[in-house]
Amino acid sequence: MSKPLLAGIEAGGTKFVCAVGYSPVEILRETRFPTTTPEETMMRAYEFFSGCEKDLGPIASLGIGSFGPVDLDLSSDTFGNITSTPKILWADTDIVGFFTNRMNVPVGFDTDTNAAALGEGLYGAGRGCDTFLYLTIGTGIGGGVVVDNKALHGLVHPEVGHIRVAPRRDDPFPGTCPFHGSCLEGMAAGPAIEARWGRPGIELPEDHPAWDLEAWYLAQGLASMVLMLSPQRIIMGGGVMHQPQIFPAIRRYLKEFLNGYVDRPEITEEQEEYIVFPERENRAGITGALLLAEDAASVQ
Amino acid sequence: MSKPLLAGIEAGGTKFVCAVGYSPVEILRETRFPTTTPEETMMRAYEFFSGCEKDLGPIASLGIGSFGPVDLDLSSDTFGNITSTPKILWADTDIVGFFTNRMNVPVGFDTDTNAAALGEGLYGAGRGCDTFLYLTIGTGIGGGVVVDNKALHGLVHPEVGHIRVAPRRDDPFPGTCPFHGSCLEGMAAGPAIEARWGRPGIELPEDHPAWDLEAWYLAQGLASMVLMLSPQRIIMGGGVMHQPQIFPAIRRYLKEFLNGYVDRPEITEEQEEYIVFPERENRAGITGALLLAEDAASVQ
Repeated sequence: MSKPLLAGIEAGGTKFVCAVGYSPVEILRETRFPTTTPEETMMRAYEFFSGCEKDLGPIASLGIGSFGPVDLDLSSDTFGNITSTPKILWADTDIVGFFTNRMNVPVGFDTDTNAAALGEGLYGAGRGCDTFLYLTIGTGIGGGVVVDNKALHGLVHPEVGHIRVAPRRDDPFPGTCPFHGSCLEGMAAGPAIEARWGRPGIELPEDHPAWDLEAWYLAQGLASMVLMLSPQRIIMGGGVMHQPQIFPAIRRYLKEFLNGYVDRPEITEEQEEYIVFPERENRAGITGALLLAEDAASVQ
Repeated sequence: MSKPLLAGIEAGGTKFVCAVGYSPVEILRETRFPTTTPEETMMRAYEFFSGCEKDLGPIASLGIGSFGPVDLDLSSDTFGNITSTPKILWADTDIVGFFTNRMNVPVGFDTDTNAAALGEGLYGAGRGCDTFLYLTIGTGIGGGVVVDNKALHGLVHPEVGHIRVAPRRDDPFPGTCPFHGSCLEGMAAGPAIEARWGRPGIELPEDHPAWDLEAWYLAQGLASMVLMLSPQRIIMGGGVMHQPQIFPAIRRYLKEFLNGYVDRPEITEEQEEYIVFPERENRAGITGALLLAEDAASVQ
């Protein structure tokens, strides 16, 4: 029996990436184009897949990792929709319905960050782990939580970037988050660095005190995540993490915050394999979308 | 085919509860006795089960929810051991090995709090949820995280009581946790209430300001837990939660902390079914131990 052909969409707010392949890391064709109106953009993806089917045979299933907010609740009337997004044209778009109706294959659906977490975790820096955390620290702090090889949903899905942090004694900054002020994102995402120091992080020298403070806040957040989720590994990507000097400081502060309470060598020793940079950074999303397709096929 | 007979042990630091039954909530025999030396205590449990087998037929599997710390890592040489416990007699006790060797049945094993979380969650106040949080707020703050009907382990297991909280502006209290000072347990468990107000919580009147502050800290912790884990329900038991007046304040503060960011009616509306008191409080542990037995039988 030949392997089923998988299709994936990384549906981003600025661009779509579409691919087909026989496994999440065996991509045969791929295309990317800007996100315009829902009808035009989705139709373009559909036409790409139709073209692939002509040459490669029928697609067995589709996976979509989408920008949001999205409705992941299988029991909801609006499951598979992009819901109240600030990208006004896309509000209340039934993205899963669009493809289900036209392609007549099972469709796996999740957030873009969960798809990236799965892709990076299972085929990248999280290899060998079944329960891990994937974070991106950039203009916001987002990420995905994977438990037993599945993206955690629960009531909705985690929003780990918005957990509250205690301010450092020497830091009067009130935070930039419009919802929570001084949550982790409000204190440590790119805009917080820029607002606090008057320049974007990319312009600050490697030895600027900004990076020690940044590592301190990130480590405080990680400590709570370790205590809450007990991940086997933490993958940290995104623009801010392109400052390699902050990894050692994050590891050191994480040890300080936990203070021996989680008595495992992964944490109490060097953490070089515990807190890691992604391997597939720009490929994680489409890999994850194909993984969602694989899962959708297997539950049929 | 008759149902398999399940055996369970709630192995506590001060007492053992042992039971057998055909389901986690259909208990046929039960006994409880004080925790003394490992050999004497475990032998007493074994003899109870042997007696049950004479009358009821063979036991199919055993579940143990144990005080700890315990080693839950299946790949570890010391899996199934109580490890570095301050109860010195029990340090490095191979509790799973003891029963595996004598009873020759599959043994399911987890922490006492995880067993209680499973018992309370699946047969009590968490009914209908597959992903939820079970907390006890008493002399410490502990609990269990259940994801897809299974206790979350990951690297070790969560220790949700020790996540860091930001102090309230009017509260100079430094916290009582010997590891973390002002973590949630350090600021809001029973000993913190007593140290802050000079009297144990049980002696404070219902309208004492202690309870508003207590609700504020607990809600802050819950907000982070909601953002990290996205539970479908939060069950809160333990001594402190026997103050019914604090539930409304916790719900109100939780809404304030999240500030609309998790846009689900469970949270943005009344939360009467979102944050709940346990139903099986004293029975949760043994119910969970029998659930572990059921799982152990089914994976054979």
